[in-house]
Amino acid sequence: MVSRKITSVDDLSLKEISSIVNKALRFKKSTNQKKTNKPKNIFNLFLEASTRTTISFELASKKLGHNVINVNFEKSSLSKGETFNDTMDTLISMKPDALIIRDKNNFSPHEIYQKHKIPILNAGDGTNEHPTQALLDLCVIKSIFKDKKIKIGICGDIKHSRVAHSNIKLLSKLNHEIHIIAPNYFLDKKELTKINRKLVFHKSLSKLPKLDVIMMLRVQKERISKNAKSYMNSFKKDFCLNLNHLKNQPYLMHPGPVNRNIEIDSKVLDSYSKSLILRQVDMGVYLRMACLDFILK
Amino acid sequence: MVSRKITSVDDLSLKEISSIVNKALRFKKSTNQKKTNKPKNIFNLFLEASTRTTISFELASKKLGHNVINVNFEKSSLSKGETFNDTMDTLISMKPDALIIRDKNNFSPHEIYQKHKIPILNAGDGTNEHPTQALLDLCVIKSIFKDKKIKIGICGDIKHSRVAHSNIKLLSKLNHEIHIIAPNYFLDKKELTKINRKLVFHKSLSKLPKLDVIMMLRVQKERISKNAKSYMNSFKKDFCLNLNHLKNQPYLMHPGPVNRNIEIDSKVLDSYSKSLILRQVDMGVYLRMACLDFILK
Amino acid sequence: MVSRKITSVDDLSLKEISSIVNKALRFKKSTNQKKTNKPKNIFNLFLEASTRTTISFELASKKLGHNVINVNFEKSSLSKGETFNDTMDTLISMKPDALIIRDKNNFSPHEIYQKHKIPILNAGDGTNEHPTQALLDLCVIKSIFKDKKIKIGICGDIKHSRVAHSNIKLLSKLNHEIHIIAPNYFLDKKELTKINRKLVFHKSLSKLPKLDVIMMLRVQKERISKNAKSYMNSFKKDFCLNLNHLKNQPYLMHPGPVNRNIEIDSKVLDSYSKSLILRQVDMGVYLRMACLDFILK
Repeated sequence: MVSRKITSVDDLSLKEISSIVNKALRFKKSTNQKKTNKPKNIFNLFLEASTRTTISFELASKKLGHNVINVNFEKSSLSKGETFNDTMDTLISMKPDALIIRDKNNFSPHEIYQKHKIPILNAGDGTNEHPTQALLDLCVIKSIFKDKKIKIGICGDIKHSRVAHSNIKLLSKLNHEIHIIAPNYFLDKKELTKINRKLVFHKSLSKLPKLDVIMMLRVQKERISKNAKSYMNSFKKDFCLNLNHLKNQPYLMHPGPVNRNIEIDSKVLDSYSKSLILRQVDMGVYLRMACLDFILK
Repeated sequence: MVSRKITSVDDLSLKEISSIVNKALRFKKSTNQKKTNKPKNIFNLFLEASTRTTISFELASKKLGHNVINVNFEKSSLSKGETFNDTMDTLISMKPDALIIRDKNNFSPHEIYQKHKIPILNAGDGTNEHPTQALLDLCVIKSIFKDKKIKIGICGDIKHSRVAHSNIKLLSKLNHEIHIIAPNYFLDKKELTKINRKLVFHKSLSKLPKLDVIMMLRVQKERISKNAKSYMNSFKKDFCLNLNHLKNQPYLMHPGPVNRNIEIDSKVLDSYSKSLILRQVDMGVYLRMACLDFILK
Repeated sequence: MVSRKITSVDDLSLKEISSIVNKALRFKKSTNQKKTNKPKNIFNLFLEASTRTTISFELASKKLGHNVINVNFEKSSLSKGETFNDTMDTLISMKPDALIIRDKNNFSPHEIYQKHKIPILNAGDGTNEHPTQALLDLCVIKSIFKDKKIKIGICGDIKHSRVAHSNIKLLSKLNHEIHIIAPNYFLDKKELTKINRKLVFHKSLSKLPKLDVIMMLRVQKERISKNAKSYMNSFKKDFCLNLNHLKNQPYLMHPGPVNRNIEIDSKVLDSYSKSLILRQVDMGVYLRMACLDFILK
């Protein structure tokens, strides 16, 4: 039997996506989640700091009745001079039933799967992908719009955002209409057009068509080059979402954590009634339960 | 239904105090604690370093069969520039069944409850309160003195001690006779008299009435101002409990961790037979089980 | 009833060793490990950084159905000025069912047992012993050689290696033929001869008899004196295992983490087919399950 994985949105067929999303929505509705009587042992490897995602995965695993073993790499063998590959070989030799991994290196979940064929979930790899975030965003969208094809704007630091990459792939697969709003220094148009030739590009938040959803991205200060940092002031001026941009009343999404007054104005965060930001966090737990169920099958 | 909380001793009626204390004493007696078959998910948030209290709460939760998710704020979103309030909103959007929180800011558990109405236990907030410590101290006292009204001395850095504040409130409610022993620089008499007008104040350990219990406090070096630090030598000379002070054989309590030879002489710690310090630690686990049961009702 | 402990290989009789090893091998074979319905509470104290051993013990405990409470000493009371002994008294007053401890101080697990008589496993104490590593190594040897008396070489930094000390004790008890390969600066011949007068000493990897197993040790850079560090270049030249040393095709063992190109050449690590290194990691989990079962009896 082949081990299952979600290292990228591309790993999933339309049927699998639909099945995972529907299961997540069922988990959310049911108040009395039954726990497994065959608990699995799940290694939770976070090689980059994260609160929301680590906790969300840990909670999802425990809600299903599984055991979570958090592997803290900061106080790990790596500090004793072992290579990353040797550490991974060691951990996987202990035969966990599944691996959840966040790493700052692009494609490392994919490479680990290629070598070890272990059930694996990508919890974010560098600037590449964050497939469970895209899937949970889809759950939230589906819980509001059902099967309607929506118009969604994705705005900000597209280039360094694994969230954007996974969302563009996923929403494209499902034929939603995607508008990209970003300055040139946060955009790699060529790359994106390979994913979806119908993407519509905008240089400003001011003259957008009527959107169902606007998804703002975190500016990934920790991943951008010094060169791009010099653009930050101009970015804040032109691309920080304020109440004026929201006259058409789209739903607002953001993967968090938010840089207040960089990508979204504090007034929007504290008063805009159509924000879905905390619903995304809530949905994340149920979606990750569904993803765990999927790879542990 | 209203969520329950213990953010302060003031949250509890006499009946509730008695019920929690009695349940803790029953937990201590029973060797075969039955675990719940409906495990809850408890977030354990410690924003200040702590061994004994973190572990005590984690063990209490697990003894009851619940899931504990430790939230480590040092490697959290806070380091990515998210505000404390946004992080709390995020965590609580994941819908834990209860929150245990220690924070260096006074009243933060209260404020979180006001906003989110989630079952919450205060595991120590700044210099304000540490209600589960006072309740466990009461359990230890009750296990020795039953329903007798006792004479208890509380000595040391009252001003910066959340343990003292919760104990003075709790023991006052129950009409025990409280003697406060402290230098002026570790005392806010006005504040204390508001809680209980019958407090008896002393300036020295030498001429005390016969006490049933003497409770020494940790000098909170990390919380006191530079000014007060200059008093440390004079404090050690006058208020460090030694064997001479114990001629009347009171029981000795201390919330730990002890600064040896600052608030208690090492000889006392290593030889005094009526020390209850480790019994307090032991009782802490059972008392916290009872508190968890209380808020999860 | 007396609490059981494995603080040293010397704690175990031949019968107990055999019983633990056989149980570990049974655990490895059985696919459907039944969990206890009386979970115990195990404190996992790691006062030295470690990935493989911490995780291995945590996984072993959870596979048996027990609760693990990781005690992180870096953010502990120790930083608030409490002594190590006071912290241990505190932790043990919470009455965990067992203690797993790694400490950089020799004999601290033994000393804790002497004082507290609590079920305890030594997960490595300074340069003294690492008994569960020796036991798991024995499991791997037994899974290949059954009851044959083997010829085994142990090579490298014997002096600072707790793994070597436990292995020499254990293999000597069982009358295997032990060859020690080490430079003088990594050797305390007198000490070793006290354990086993029949040890055979070699000064080079080049002219060894035909061995069944060669066990390489990690050079414990973090434990060796400045003086010995100056020998590192000469050590690498003379004692780094390469393919030329393996013409007789012995099985290769190493406790990990490996310093590539210091004690073992990368080519050996990446191509030698008779390496048991990852099988040791795998076996470690089952052996530790058996050790936990032993002390919790």
